[in-house]
Amino acid sequence: MVSSTFSRSFSTPAEARQAARDGLLTGSTAGLASGYVQVNLVILPEEQANGFLRFCQANPKPCPVLAVSEPGDRQCALLGKDLDIARDVPSYRVYRNGQLADTRNEVSDVWRDDLVTFALGCSFSFEHALIQNGVPVRHIDEGRNVSMYKTSLALQPAGGFSGHMVVSMRPFLAEAAIRAVQITTRFPQTHGAPVHLGDPALIGIEDLDFPDYGDSVSVGRDEIPVFWACGVTPQQVLMDSGIEFAITHTPGHMLVTDIPESQVALL
Amino acid sequence: MVSSTFSRSFSTPAEARQAARDGLLTGSTAGLASGYVQVNLVILPEEQANGFLRFCQANPKPCPVLAVSEPGDRQCALLGKDLDIARDVPSYRVYRNGQLADTRNEVSDVWRDDLVTFALGCSFSFEHALIQNGVPVRHIDEGRNVSMYKTSLALQPAGGFSGHMVVSMRPFLAEAAIRAVQITTRFPQTHGAPVHLGDPALIGIEDLDFPDYGDSVSVGRDEIPVFWACGVTPQQVLMDSGIEFAITHTPGHMLVTDIPESQVALL
Repeated sequence: MVSSTFSRSFSTPAEARQAARDGLLTGSTAGLASGYVQVNLVILPEEQANGFLRFCQANPKPCPVLAVSEPGDRQCALLGKDLDIARDVPSYRVYRNGQLADTRNEVSDVWRDDLVTFALGCSFSFEHALIQNGVPVRHIDEGRNVSMYKTSLALQPAGGFSGHMVVSMRPFLAEAAIRAVQITTRFPQTHGAPVHLGDPALIGIEDLDFPDYGDSVSVGRDEIPVFWACGVTPQQVLMDSGIEFAITHTPGHMLVTDIPESQVALL
Repeated sequence: MVSSTFSRSFSTPAEARQAARDGLLTGSTAGLASGYVQVNLVILPEEQANGFLRFCQANPKPCPVLAVSEPGDRQCALLGKDLDIARDVPSYRVYRNGQLADTRNEVSDVWRDDLVTFALGCSFSFEHALIQNGVPVRHIDEGRNVSMYKTSLALQPAGGFSGHMVVSMRPFLAEAAIRAVQITTRFPQTHGAPVHLGDPALIGIEDLDFPDYGDSVSVGRDEIPVFWACGVTPQQVLMDSGIEFAITHTPGHMLVTDIPESQVALL
């Protein structure tokens, strides 16, 4: 009965956030509070945040900015009601001097008054739209995390940040790949249309069976791998920049917002 | 000076139609009266036309109906002013008993009071949109006709007609292929989004170098062939059905209408 109570209690964004805050939800947020936007978080000292915002504006496909907080603000009212940025995510990553220093369930004790929070769109939103339109999503069907890869696609340097794009990959038959381009085009704030399809080597990926993040999935002989800009990109960029201090969510463990997915769709 | 006068005189739809009517324009209409919709024509006796309309409605990607005339009507006011369906196309094909019987510059002498005209959208419209959006179109760059192929894609039987889809092919780098899906999605009345991309064998095409209609074009190693439903499909279907009498335009020699291309775009 307890698990049934839990799944009911995670069916709204407020309940999912409360469960994370209470330490009852520590895993992936995939499939929780269906119909509401989940976001990638990047939390930086104001000194680096201004440059990072310019970097996001220059690279909107991997870094689609949904909201930026005022320095020190933990509420981010644009994202939801009674929200606490430092406690409502199931798992956080703390970076020090460009290294992953710690993974933890809340960051209240390392919070600072100069921290600026970036909420970046996440592909969970368009995955719901794909499935609703009859386009099957392989990693969901196989119960795995999406496959993610470092690429040779150079990002536009800005604000002191630079690097290469990380992409997520979903394989489709041709007709579904075409439909997937159409559907994800409607979601520019959650990575939008693909950045590549077909031969992985053309964007510097050597072997689809060995993703740099997430899990591998099966790819059929008749299928085309389709690649989207990925919200893990900024985490890679922050590490590569050797940033002194930063906090992000743990990949797959997103902040659940009160924003309906329909609100970030163009059509 | 004469050729300069001619190219000026073909810059509007009315001038292009008048030139065809006067026998001054007998070639392809590609690039004429830029910005205006050109259409495929299928002209059938009313007895077969009712079934053919049901066939078009069941197969909107190869047969997007822009207008259907009343029986015997040669003016088709929906398509343009002072228009004569029997004289304003640079080249017509006359079919008898499922065979191409004749190619001619006008069909006034074989016109009948029971003939119904179907105007079907043509990919010339979305090709202009591709080029305007910086997506290069290979066959135009190479000064050739687009490559067209018979496929194994079965059409939906309706109204006594059936058969397989004919497709046109344009090769692109992946990023341009994605953009081409987006752009052509805006043009459902001129064949819309692609029906296939990638491996030609999956839709029954053995060798891209040997198109069934039109010319072959070069395809780069890094490029993906992208396939659209083609307005030649109904001509193939009419021949396969052994139809007693029909008139069409000659492929590439379209009727130029007064309809602005922007009017058939969704966005």
